[in-house]
Amino acid sequence: MNKNMPIGVFDSGLGGLTVLRALQKKLPNESFIYIGDTAHVPYGNKSETAIINYATTLSAFLVDMYKVKMIIIACNTASAIAVKPLKEYFKVPVLDVITPMQKLFKKNNNIQRIGIIGTHNTIKSKSYEKLLFSLNPEIQIFSQACPLFVPIIEEGLENHPIAKLMSKEYLFPLIEQNIDALILGCTHYPILKKTINRFIPPEIEIIDSAEILSSYTKQHLKQQELTNSSPNVTTRLLVTDASDHFNQFARNILNNNFCNIAIINPF
Amino acid sequence: MNKNMPIGVFDSGLGGLTVLRALQKKLPNESFIYIGDTAHVPYGNKSETAIINYATTLSAFLVDMYKVKMIIIACNTASAIAVKPLKEYFKVPVLDVITPMQKLFKKNNNIQRIGIIGTHNTIKSKSYEKLLFSLNPEIQIFSQACPLFVPIIEEGLENHPIAKLMSKEYLFPLIEQNIDALILGCTHYPILKKTINRFIPPEIEIIDSAEILSSYTKQHLKQQELTNSSPNVTTRLLVTDASDHFNQFARNILNNNFCNIAIINPF
Repeated sequence: MNKNMPIGVFDSGLGGLTVLRALQKKLPNESFIYIGDTAHVPYGNKSETAIINYATTLSAFLVDMYKVKMIIIACNTASAIAVKPLKEYFKVPVLDVITPMQKLFKKNNNIQRIGIIGTHNTIKSKSYEKLLFSLNPEIQIFSQACPLFVPIIEEGLENHPIAKLMSKEYLFPLIEQNIDALILGCTHYPILKKTINRFIPPEIEIIDSAEILSSYTKQHLKQQELTNSSPNVTTRLLVTDASDHFNQFARNILNNNFCNIAIINPF
Repeated sequence: MNKNMPIGVFDSGLGGLTVLRALQKKLPNESFIYIGDTAHVPYGNKSETAIINYATTLSAFLVDMYKVKMIIIACNTASAIAVKPLKEYFKVPVLDVITPMQKLFKKNNNIQRIGIIGTHNTIKSKSYEKLLFSLNPEIQIFSQACPLFVPIIEEGLENHPIAKLMSKEYLFPLIEQNIDALILGCTHYPILKKTINRFIPPEIEIIDSAEILSSYTKQHLKQQELTNSSPNVTTRLLVTDASDHFNQFARNILNNNFCNIAIINPF
Protein backbone atom coordinates (compact mmCIF):
# COMPACT_ATOMS: atom_id res chain seq x y z
CA MET A 1 0.00 0.00 0.00
CA ASN A 2 1.40 3.39 -1.01
CA LYS A 3 1.06 5.99 1.74
CA ASN A 4 1.00 8.77 -0.87
CA MET A 5 -2.28 7.55 -2.39
CA PRO A 6 -5.55 9.34 -1.55
CA ILE A 7 -8.10 8.43 1.14
CA GLY A 8 -11.43 7.22 -0.30
CA VAL A 9 -14.62 8.53 1.32
CA PHE A 10 -18.19 7.64 0.35
CA ASP A 11 -21.71 8.60 1.38
CA SER A 12 -25.25 8.12 0.08
CA GLY A 13 -25.25 11.73 -1.17
CA LEU A 14 -24.14 15.12 0.08
CA GLY A 15 -24.44 14.74 3.88
CA GLY A 16 -20.99 13.12 4.05
CA LEU A 17 -19.41 16.32 2.71
CA THR A 18 -19.38 17.61 6.31
CA VAL A 19 -17.25 14.56 7.19
CA LEU A 20 -14.96 15.34 4.24
CA ARG A 21 -14.72 18.97 5.41
CA ALA A 22 -13.67 17.85 8.92
CA LEU A 23 -11.11 15.44 7.40
CA GLN A 24 -9.65 18.20 5.16
CA LYS A 25 -9.32 20.47 8.19
CA LYS A 26 -7.64 17.86 10.41
CA LEU A 27 -5.51 16.37 7.61
CA PRO A 28 -4.56 19.24 5.26
CA ASN A 29 -1.70 17.20 3.83
CA GLU A 30 -3.83 14.30 2.56
CA SER A 31 -5.61 13.78 -0.77
CA PHE A 32 -9.25 12.65 -0.90
CA ILE A 33 -11.60 11.00 -3.39
CA TYR A 34 -15.24 11.39 -2.34
CA ILE A 35 -18.16 9.50 -3.91
CA GLY A 36 -21.73 10.73 -3.33
CA ASP A 37 -24.10 7.93 -4.36
CA THR A 38 -26.71 10.41 -5.65
CA ALA A 39 -28.35 7.66 -7.76
CA HIS A 40 -29.46 5.84 -4.61
CA VAL A 41 -29.90 8.63 -2.03
CA PRO A 42 -31.34 8.23 0.62
CA TYR A 43 -30.01 4.90 1.97
CA GLY A 44 -32.35 5.20 4.98
CA ASN A 45 -35.28 3.55 3.19
CA LYS A 46 -33.32 0.83 1.31
CA SER A 47 -32.92 -2.83 2.34
CA GLU A 48 -29.74 -4.08 4.07
CA THR A 49 -28.82 -6.22 1.03
CA ALA A 50 -29.05 -3.20 -1.26
CA ILE A 51 -26.92 -1.04 1.07
CA ILE A 52 -24.18 -3.70 1.37
CA ASN A 53 -24.21 -4.03 -2.42
CA TYR A 54 -23.86 -0.25 -2.97
CA ALA A 55 -21.14 0.07 -0.30
CA THR A 56 -19.11 -2.83 -1.76
CA THR A 57 -19.39 -1.53 -5.34
CA LEU A 58 -18.33 2.01 -4.36
CA SER A 59 -15.43 0.73 -2.24
CA ALA A 60 -14.22 -1.58 -5.05
CA PHE A 61 -14.33 1.41 -7.42
CA LEU A 62 -12.21 3.48 -4.99
CA VAL A 63 -9.68 0.67 -4.55
CA ASP A 64 -9.46 -0.43 -8.21
CA MET A 65 -9.60 2.94 -9.97
CA TYR A 66 -7.96 5.27 -7.44
CA LYS A 67 -5.78 2.84 -5.41
CA VAL A 68 -6.97 4.47 -2.18
CA LYS A 69 -4.97 3.64 0.95
CA MET A 70 -8.03 3.72 3.22
CA ILE A 71 -11.86 3.66 2.91
CA ILE A 72 -14.00 5.92 5.10
CA ILE A 73 -17.77 5.31 5.30
CA ALA A 74 -19.18 8.82 5.84
CA CYS A 75 -22.82 7.73 6.15
CA ASN A 76 -24.62 6.69 9.35
CA THR A 77 -26.82 4.05 7.69
CA ALA A 78 -23.99 2.44 5.68
CA SER A 79 -21.69 2.54 8.73
CA ALA A 80 -24.20 0.60 10.80
CA ILE A 81 -24.85 -2.02 8.11
CA ALA A 82 -21.82 -2.35 5.83
CA VAL A 83 -18.67 -1.86 7.92
CA LYS A 84 -18.30 -5.56 8.78
CA PRO A 85 -18.59 -6.98 5.23
CA LEU A 86 -16.31 -4.21 3.87
CA LYS A 87 -13.63 -4.98 6.47
CA GLU A 88 -13.78 -8.66 5.54
CA TYR A 89 -13.61 -7.99 1.80
CA PHE A 90 -10.97 -5.24 1.46
CA LYS A 91 -7.29 -5.26 2.47
CA VAL A 92 -7.09 -1.48 3.03
CA PRO A 93 -8.28 -0.18 6.44
CA VAL A 94 -12.03 0.59 6.55
CA LEU A 95 -13.17 3.32 8.98
CA ASP A 96 -16.75 4.36 9.72
CA VAL A 97 -18.52 7.20 11.57
CA ILE A 98 -19.88 5.06 14.43
CA THR A 99 -16.86 3.07 15.75
CA PRO A 100 -14.83 6.14 16.91
CA MET A 101 -17.90 7.32 18.87
CA GLN A 102 -17.95 3.97 20.66
CA LYS A 103 -14.37 4.49 21.83
CA LEU A 104 -15.22 7.98 23.07
CA PHE A 105 -18.04 6.71 25.29
CA LYS A 106 -15.90 3.92 26.69
CA LYS A 107 -13.46 6.57 27.96
CA ASN A 108 -16.10 9.03 29.27
CA ASN A 109 -17.93 7.20 31.98
CA ASN A 110 -19.28 10.42 33.43
CA ILE A 111 -21.69 10.82 30.49
CA GLN A 112 -24.87 9.22 31.81
CA ARG A 113 -27.80 11.02 30.17
CA ILE A 114 -27.47 11.30 26.43
CA GLY A 115 -29.65 13.15 23.93
CA ILE A 116 -29.66 12.03 20.31
CA ILE A 117 -31.04 13.98 17.36
CA GLY A 118 -31.43 12.46 13.89
CA THR A 119 -33.78 11.78 10.99
CA HIS A 120 -36.99 9.76 11.49
CA ASN A 121 -35.21 6.68 10.10
CA THR A 122 -32.15 6.95 12.37
CA ILE A 123 -34.25 7.53 15.48
CA LYS A 124 -36.64 4.70 14.55
CA SER A 125 -33.75 2.28 13.89
CA LYS A 126 -32.46 2.80 17.49
CA SER A 127 -28.92 2.19 16.19
CA TYR A 128 -27.35 4.64 18.66
CA GLU A 129 -29.39 3.26 21.57
CA LYS A 130 -28.20 -0.28 20.82
CA LEU A 131 -24.58 0.85 20.53
CA LEU A 132 -24.62 2.90 23.75
CA PHE A 133 -26.48 0.28 25.79
CA SER A 134 -23.92 -2.31 24.72
CA LEU A 135 -21.19 -0.06 26.20
CA ASN A 136 -23.04 0.83 29.38
CA PRO A 137 -26.47 -0.61 30.18
CA GLU A 138 -27.04 2.10 32.83
CA ILE A 139 -26.94 4.94 30.31
CA GLN A 140 -30.19 6.90 29.80
CA ILE A 141 -31.08 7.92 26.28
CA PHE A 142 -33.49 10.62 25.10
CA SER A 143 -34.02 10.79 21.35
CA GLN A 144 -35.69 13.35 19.13
CA ALA A 145 -36.36 13.13 15.40
CA CYS A 146 -35.68 16.47 13.67
CA PRO A 147 -37.15 15.87 10.20
CA LEU A 148 -37.08 19.53 9.11
CA PHE A 149 -33.31 19.94 9.71
CA VAL A 150 -32.19 18.16 6.50
CA PRO A 151 -34.42 20.20 4.14
CA ILE A 152 -33.49 23.43 6.02
CA ILE A 153 -29.78 22.64 5.57
CA GLU A 154 -30.11 21.47 1.98
CA GLU A 155 -31.90 24.74 1.10
CA GLY A 156 -29.08 26.77 2.70
CA LEU A 157 -31.42 28.18 5.39
CA GLU A 158 -29.11 27.42 8.36
CA ASN A 159 -28.99 31.13 9.30
CA HIS A 160 -32.66 31.84 8.53
CA PRO A 161 -35.17 32.42 11.41
CA ILE A 162 -36.75 29.05 10.49
CA ALA A 163 -33.57 27.29 11.70
CA LYS A 164 -33.85 28.98 15.11
CA LEU A 165 -37.58 28.28 15.35
CA MET A 166 -37.19 24.56 14.66
CA SER A 167 -34.01 24.20 16.78
CA LYS A 168 -35.87 25.62 19.75
CA GLU A 169 -38.79 23.28 19.20
CA TYR A 170 -36.69 20.14 18.72
CA LEU A 171 -34.03 20.78 21.39
CA PHE A 172 -36.13 22.10 24.25
CA PRO A 173 -37.60 18.69 25.27
CA LEU A 174 -34.06 17.23 25.40
CA ILE A 175 -32.65 20.11 27.48
CA GLU A 176 -35.53 19.63 29.95
CA GLN A 177 -34.27 16.06 30.50
CA ASN A 178 -30.96 17.39 31.91
CA ILE A 179 -28.81 15.60 29.35
CA ASP A 180 -24.99 15.58 29.76
CA ALA A 181 -24.27 15.27 26.05
CA LEU A 182 -26.04 15.69 22.70
CA ILE A 183 -25.13 13.46 19.75
CA LEU A 184 -25.60 15.01 16.30
CA GLY A 185 -26.86 11.77 14.76
CA CYS A 186 -26.97 12.92 11.13
CA THR A 187 -24.06 13.99 8.92
CA HIS A 188 -25.98 17.13 7.85
CA TYR A 189 -26.31 18.54 11.36
CA PRO A 190 -22.80 19.99 11.92
CA ILE A 191 -23.90 22.74 9.49
CA LEU A 192 -26.49 23.80 12.10
CA LYS A 193 -23.99 23.63 14.99
CA LYS A 194 -23.82 27.40 15.52
CA THR A 195 -27.61 27.63 15.82
CA ILE A 196 -27.82 24.51 17.99
CA ASN A 197 -25.08 25.95 20.25
CA ARG A 198 -27.25 28.98 21.02
CA PHE A 199 -29.97 26.83 22.55
CA ILE A 200 -27.84 24.26 24.35
CA PRO A 201 -26.43 25.25 27.78
CA PRO A 202 -22.60 25.23 27.80
CA GLU A 203 -22.39 22.31 30.26
CA ILE A 204 -23.95 19.97 27.66
CA GLU A 205 -21.27 18.47 25.43
CA ILE A 206 -22.13 18.45 21.71
CA ILE A 207 -20.83 15.30 20.05
CA ASP A 208 -20.09 15.65 16.34
CA SER A 209 -19.11 12.32 14.76
CA ALA A 210 -17.31 14.04 11.85
CA GLU A 211 -14.83 15.69 14.24
CA ILE A 212 -14.32 12.54 16.30
CA LEU A 213 -13.80 10.47 13.14
CA SER A 214 -11.20 12.89 11.74
CA SER A 215 -9.10 12.80 14.94
CA TYR A 216 -9.38 9.02 14.92
CA THR A 217 -8.32 8.90 11.25
CA LYS A 218 -5.23 11.02 11.94
CA GLN A 219 -4.21 8.72 14.76
CA HIS A 220 -4.86 5.62 12.64
CA LEU A 221 -2.74 6.92 9.72
CA LYS A 222 0.12 7.59 12.14
CA GLN A 223 -0.06 4.17 13.80
CA GLN A 224 -0.19 2.37 10.44
CA GLU A 225 2.57 4.62 9.02
CA LEU A 226 0.25 5.74 6.23
CA THR A 227 0.64 9.53 6.59
CA ASN A 228 1.15 11.19 3.20
CA SER A 229 4.62 12.56 2.42
CA SER A 230 4.00 13.94 -1.07
CA PRO A 231 3.65 17.75 -1.34
CA ASN A 232 0.78 17.74 -3.87
CA VAL A 233 -2.65 17.14 -2.38
CA THR A 234 -6.06 17.29 -4.09
CA THR A 235 -9.69 16.52 -3.36
CA ARG A 236 -11.81 15.02 -6.14
CA LEU A 237 -15.58 14.60 -5.97
CA LEU A 238 -17.53 11.90 -7.83
CA VAL A 239 -21.30 11.38 -8.04
CA THR A 240 -23.34 8.46 -9.41
CA ASP A 241 -26.06 10.72 -10.91
CA ALA A 242 -25.91 14.33 -12.10
CA SER A 243 -27.15 16.74 -9.42
CA ASP A 244 -26.99 20.56 -9.49
CA HIS A 245 -27.95 20.43 -5.86
CA PHE A 246 -24.85 18.40 -4.99
CA ASN A 247 -22.57 20.78 -6.92
CA GLN A 248 -23.93 23.87 -5.18
CA PHE A 249 -23.83 22.26 -1.75
CA ALA A 250 -20.26 21.04 -2.29
CA ARG A 251 -19.10 24.54 -3.24
CA ASN A 252 -20.66 26.00 -0.09
CA ILE A 253 -19.57 23.33 2.36
CA LEU A 254 -16.03 22.83 1.09
CA ASN A 255 -15.51 26.51 0.29
CA ASN A 256 -14.45 25.49 -3.25
CA ASN A 257 -11.63 23.39 -1.81
CA PHE A 258 -11.81 20.60 -4.45
CA CYS A 259 -10.63 20.30 -8.02
CA ASN A 260 -13.65 18.90 -9.90
CA ILE A 261 -16.93 16.95 -9.80
CA ALA A 262 -17.32 14.01 -12.21
CA ILE A 263 -20.16 11.58 -12.85
CA ILE A 264 -19.33 7.87 -12.61
CA ASN A 265 -21.37 4.71 -13.14
CA PRO A 266 -19.78 1.90 -11.13
CA PHE A 267 -23.02 -0.18 -10.94
CA MET B 1 -67.94 -0.76 -19.07
CA ASN B 2 -69.99 -0.99 -15.90
CA LYS B 3 -70.86 2.43 -14.46
CA ASN B 4 -71.07 0.94 -10.95
CA MET B 5 -67.37 0.05 -10.89
CA PRO B 6 -64.91 2.24 -8.96
CA ILE B 7 -62.77 5.07 -10.30
CA GLY B 8 -59.02 4.27 -10.26
CA VAL B 9 -56.65 7.00 -9.04
CA PHE B 10 -52.87 6.79 -8.83
CA ASP B 11 -49.98 8.97 -7.67
CA SER B 12 -46.26 8.59 -6.96
CA GLY B 13 -46.99 8.59 -3.21
CA LEU B 14 -49.17 10.47 -0.79
CA GLY B 15 -49.51 13.89 -2.49
CA GLY B 16 -52.37 12.62 -4.67
CA LEU B 17 -54.48 11.98 -1.55
CA THR B 18 -55.51 15.66 -1.73
CA VAL B 19 -56.86 14.93 -5.23
CA LEU B 20 -58.70 11.88 -3.85
CA ARG B 21 -60.12 14.03 -1.04
CA ALA B 22 -61.45 16.60 -3.55
CA LEU B 23 -62.94 13.77 -5.66
CA GLN B 24 -64.64 12.21 -2.60
CA LYS B 25 -66.13 15.59 -1.71
CA LYS B 26 -67.42 16.36 -5.21
CA LEU B 27 -68.52 12.76 -5.95
CA PRO B 28 -69.76 11.29 -2.65
CA ASN B 29 -71.66 8.57 -4.52
CA GLU B 30 -68.64 7.07 -6.29
CA SER B 31 -66.20 4.34 -5.18
CA PHE B 32 -62.44 4.84 -5.49
CA ILE B 33 -59.30 2.69 -5.62
CA TYR B 34 -56.16 4.74 -4.97
CA ILE B 35 -52.61 3.48 -5.56
CA GLY B 36 -49.67 5.35 -3.99
CA ASP B 37 -46.48 4.16 -5.71
CA THR B 38 -44.45 4.47 -2.49
CA ALA B 39 -41.78 2.11 -3.90
CA HIS B 40 -40.82 4.73 -6.52
CA VAL B 41 -41.61 8.05 -4.86
CA PRO B 42 -40.65 10.72 -5.93
CA TYR B 43 -41.24 10.57 -9.71
CA GLY B 44 -39.66 14.02 -10.13
CA ASN B 45 -36.12 12.66 -10.40
CA LYS B 46 -36.90 9.58 -12.55
CA SER B 47 -36.47 9.22 -16.33
CA GLU B 48 -39.47 9.59 -18.71
CA THR B 49 -39.21 5.90 -19.71
CA ALA B 50 -39.38 4.82 -16.05
CA ILE B 51 -42.40 7.05 -15.35
CA ILE B 52 -44.33 5.75 -18.41
CA ASN B 53 -43.52 2.20 -17.31
CA TYR B 54 -44.77 2.81 -13.72
CA ALA B 55 -47.94 4.60 -14.93
CA THR B 56 -48.78 1.81 -17.41
CA THR B 57 -48.23 -0.96 -14.87
CA LEU B 58 -50.34 0.77 -12.19
CA SER B 59 -53.15 1.51 -14.70
CA ALA B 60 -53.14 -2.09 -15.99
CA PHE B 61 -53.42 -3.28 -12.37
CA LEU B 62 -56.42 -0.98 -11.75
CA VAL B 63 -58.13 -2.14 -14.96
CA ASP B 64 -57.36 -5.87 -14.65
CA MET B 65 -57.82 -6.38 -10.91
CA TYR B 66 -60.45 -3.79 -10.04
CA LYS B 67 -62.23 -3.29 -13.39
CA VAL B 68 -62.14 0.49 -12.88
CA LYS B 69 -64.39 2.56 -15.17
CA MET B 70 -61.93 5.46 -15.35
CA ILE B 71 -58.25 6.19 -14.58
CA ILE B 72 -57.22 9.46 -12.93
CA ILE B 73 -53.52 10.45 -12.84
CA ALA B 74 -53.24 12.43 -9.58
CA CYS B 75 -49.56 13.34 -10.01
CA ASN B 76 -48.17 16.40 -11.80
CA THR B 77 -45.08 14.66 -13.19
CA ALA B 78 -46.94 11.56 -14.44
CA SER B 79 -49.71 13.76 -15.90
CA ALA B 80 -47.19 15.71 -17.97
CA ILE B 81 -45.37 12.61 -19.24
CA ALA B 82 -47.73 9.61 -19.27
CA VAL B 83 -51.23 10.84 -20.17
CA LYS B 84 -50.77 10.36 -23.96
CA PRO B 85 -49.44 6.76 -23.87
CA LEU B 86 -52.09 5.76 -21.28
CA LYS B 87 -54.89 7.19 -23.45
CA GLU B 88 -53.60 5.21 -26.43
CA TYR B 89 -53.25 1.99 -24.46
CA PHE B 90 -56.42 1.83 -22.33
CA LYS B 91 -60.08 1.76 -23.40
CA VAL B 92 -61.39 3.43 -20.21
CA PRO B 93 -61.24 7.25 -20.04
CA VAL B 94 -57.92 8.59 -18.69
CA LEU B 95 -58.02 11.96 -16.89
CA ASP B 96 -55.05 13.92 -15.54
CA VAL B 97 -54.47 16.96 -13.30
CA ILE B 98 -53.14 19.26 -16.04
CA THR B 99 -55.71 19.04 -18.91
CA PRO B 100 -58.66 20.53 -16.93
CA MET B 101 -56.42 23.49 -16.00
CA GLN B 102 -55.82 24.08 -19.71
CA LYS B 103 -59.56 24.34 -20.32
CA LEU B 104 -59.92 26.82 -17.45
CA PHE B 105 -57.32 29.18 -18.91
CA LYS B 106 -58.88 28.99 -22.38
CA LYS B 107 -62.12 30.33 -20.86
CA ASN B 108 -60.50 32.99 -18.63
CA ASN B 109 -58.77 35.35 -20.99
CA ASN B 110 -58.60 38.07 -18.34
CA ILE B 111 -55.89 36.15 -16.43
CA GLN B 112 -52.70 37.70 -17.78
CA ARG B 113 -50.14 37.57 -14.97
CA ILE B 114 -49.83 34.15 -13.38
CA GLY B 115 -47.85 33.06 -10.34
CA ILE B 116 -46.84 29.41 -10.01
CA ILE B 117 -45.53 27.71 -6.88
CA GLY B 118 -44.12 24.18 -6.90
CA THR B 119 -41.19 21.96 -5.99
CA HIS B 120 -37.70 22.63 -7.39
CA ASN B 121 -38.28 19.92 -10.02
CA THR B 122 -41.66 21.24 -11.20
CA ILE B 123 -40.42 24.82 -11.44
CA LYS B 124 -37.24 23.73 -13.22
CA SER B 125 -39.16 21.57 -15.73
CA LYS B 126 -41.17 24.68 -16.83
CA SER B 127 -44.11 22.34 -17.56
CA TYR B 128 -46.72 24.95 -16.56
CA GLU B 129 -44.96 27.70 -18.52
CA LYS B 130 -44.99 25.59 -21.68
CA LEU B 131 -48.66 24.71 -21.24
CA LEU B 132 -49.77 28.29 -20.55
CA PHE B 133 -47.66 29.82 -23.34
CA SER B 134 -49.20 27.34 -25.80
CA LEU B 135 -52.65 28.67 -24.84
CA ASN B 136 -51.72 32.35 -24.85
CA PRO B 137 -48.22 33.53 -25.78
CA GLU B 138 -48.89 36.95 -24.20
CA ILE B 139 -49.31 35.53 -20.71
CA GLN B 140 -46.68 36.56 -18.12
CA ILE B 141 -45.47 33.92 -15.70
CA PHE B 142 -43.73 34.33 -12.35
CA SER B 143 -42.58 31.14 -10.70
CA GLN B 144 -41.31 30.36 -7.24
CA ALA B 145 -39.92 27.08 -5.91
CA CYS B 146 -41.16 26.39 -2.35
CA PRO B 147 -38.96 23.44 -1.33
CA LEU B 148 -39.84 23.58 2.38
CA PHE B 149 -43.61 23.23 1.81
CA VAL B 150 -43.58 19.44 1.18
CA PRO B 151 -41.59 18.57 4.35
CA ILE B 152 -43.70 21.03 6.39
CA ILE B 153 -46.91 19.36 5.14
CA GLU B 154 -45.59 15.81 5.48
CA GLU B 155 -44.64 16.55 9.11
CA GLY B 156 -48.15 17.86 9.84
CA LEU B 157 -46.83 21.39 10.56
CA GLU B 158 -49.35 23.22 8.33
CA ASN B 159 -50.66 25.22 11.31
CA HIS B 160 -47.25 25.75 12.96
CA PRO B 161 -45.58 29.23 12.88
CA ILE B 162 -43.02 27.75 10.47
CA ALA B 163 -45.75 27.46 7.81
CA LYS B 164 -46.58 31.17 8.11
CA LEU B 165 -42.91 32.18 8.11
CA MET B 166 -42.13 30.25 4.92
CA SER B 167 -45.42 31.21 3.19
CA LYS B 168 -44.61 34.89 3.72
CA GLU B 169 -41.11 34.42 2.36
CA TYR B 170 -42.12 32.42 -0.72
CA LEU B 171 -45.31 34.33 -1.63
CA PHE B 172 -44.23 37.93 -1.11
CA PRO B 173 -42.09 38.16 -4.30
CA LEU B 174 -45.05 36.87 -6.36
CA ILE B 175 -47.55 39.30 -4.77
CA GLU B 176 -45.15 42.14 -5.59
CA GLN B 177 -45.47 41.20 -9.27
CA ASN B 178 -49.21 42.00 -9.22
CA ILE B 179 -50.27 38.53 -10.29
CA ASP B 180 -53.96 37.88 -11.20
CA ALA B 181 -53.86 34.21 -10.22
CA LEU B 182 -51.71 31.76 -8.27
CA ILE B 183 -51.41 28.13 -9.37
CA LEU B 184 -50.77 25.60 -6.59
CA GLY B 185 -48.40 23.51 -8.73
CA CYS B 186 -47.95 20.61 -6.31
CA THR B 187 -50.57 18.16 -5.05
CA HIS B 188 -49.42 18.67 -1.44
CA TYR B 189 -50.13 22.41 -1.41
CA PRO B 190 -53.94 22.43 -0.96
CA ILE B 191 -53.21 21.38 2.65
CA LEU B 192 -51.54 24.79 3.14
CA LYS B 193 -54.39 26.68 1.43
CA LYS B 194 -55.68 28.32 4.63
CA THR B 195 -52.22 29.69 5.45
CA ILE B 196 -51.56 30.74 1.85
CA ASN B 197 -54.94 32.51 1.78
CA ARG B 198 -53.88 34.76 4.67
CA PHE B 199 -51.01 36.21 2.67
CA ILE B 200 -52.65 36.44 -0.76
CA PRO B 201 -54.88 39.51 -1.39
CA PRO B 202 -58.50 38.49 -2.17
CA GLU B 203 -58.34 39.76 -5.77
CA ILE B 204 -55.75 37.06 -6.62
CA GLU B 205 -57.48 33.83 -7.67
CA ILE B 206 -55.98 30.68 -6.12
CA ILE B 207 -56.02 27.83 -8.64
CA ASP B 208 -56.14 24.37 -7.07
CA SER B 209 -55.88 21.63 -9.70
CA ALA B 210 -57.52 19.03 -7.39
CA GLU B 211 -60.75 21.08 -7.26
CA ILE B 212 -60.74 21.82 -10.98
CA LEU B 213 -60.11 18.16 -11.78
CA SER B 214 -62.95 16.95 -9.55
CA SER B 215 -65.51 19.29 -11.22
CA TYR B 216 -64.20 18.15 -14.60
CA THR B 217 -64.52 14.48 -13.55
CA LYS B 218 -68.14 14.97 -12.45
CA GLN B 219 -69.00 16.55 -15.80
CA HIS B 220 -67.15 13.81 -17.70
CA LEU B 221 -68.98 11.00 -15.85
CA LYS B 222 -72.31 12.66 -16.67
CA GLN B 223 -71.52 13.14 -20.36
CA GLN B 224 -70.32 9.55 -20.73
CA GLU B 225 -73.27 8.23 -18.68
CA LEU B 226 -70.86 6.65 -16.22
CA THR B 227 -72.30 8.07 -12.96
CA ASN B 228 -72.62 5.36 -10.29
CA SER B 229 -76.14 4.16 -9.41
CA SER B 230 -75.25 1.58 -6.74
CA PRO B 231 -75.91 2.61 -3.10
CA ASN B 232 -72.73 1.06 -1.65
CA VAL B 233 -69.62 3.14 -2.09
CA THR B 234 -66.12 2.54 -0.70
CA THR B 235 -62.62 3.93 -0.97
CA ARG B 236 -59.69 1.49 -0.92
CA LEU B 237 -56.03 2.52 -0.64
CA LEU B 238 -53.13 0.50 -2.05
CA VAL B 239 -49.38 1.14 -1.74
CA THR B 240 -46.41 -0.47 -3.51
CA ASP B 241 -44.18 -0.39 -0.39
CA ALA B 242 -45.08 -0.39 3.31
CA SER B 243 -45.04 3.14 4.75
CA ASP B 244 -46.20 4.23 8.22
CA HIS B 245 -45.91 7.77 6.95
CA PHE B 246 -48.48 7.08 4.20
CA ASN B 247 -50.91 5.46 6.64
CA GLN B 248 -50.77 8.38 9.07
CA PHE B 249 -51.05 10.98 6.32
CA ALA B 250 -54.02 9.14 4.75
CA ARG B 251 -55.88 9.06 8.07
CA ASN B 252 -55.38 12.81 8.53
CA ILE B 253 -56.13 13.93 4.98
CA LEU B 254 -59.11 11.66 4.33
CA ASN B 255 -60.44 11.97 7.87
CA ASN B 256 -60.53 8.12 8.06
CA ASN B 257 -62.91 8.02 5.08
CA PHE B 258 -61.50 4.80 3.54
CA CYS B 259 -61.89 1.12 4.36
CA ASN B 260 -58.30 -0.21 4.35
CA ILE B 261 -54.69 0.14 3.16
CA ALA B 262 -53.09 -2.88 1.44
CA ILE B 263 -49.63 -3.47 -0.01
CA ILE B 264 -49.46 -4.64 -3.65
CA ASN B 265 -46.60 -5.58 -5.94
CA PRO B 266 -47.69 -5.04 -9.53
CA PHE B 267 -44.13 -4.65 -10.90
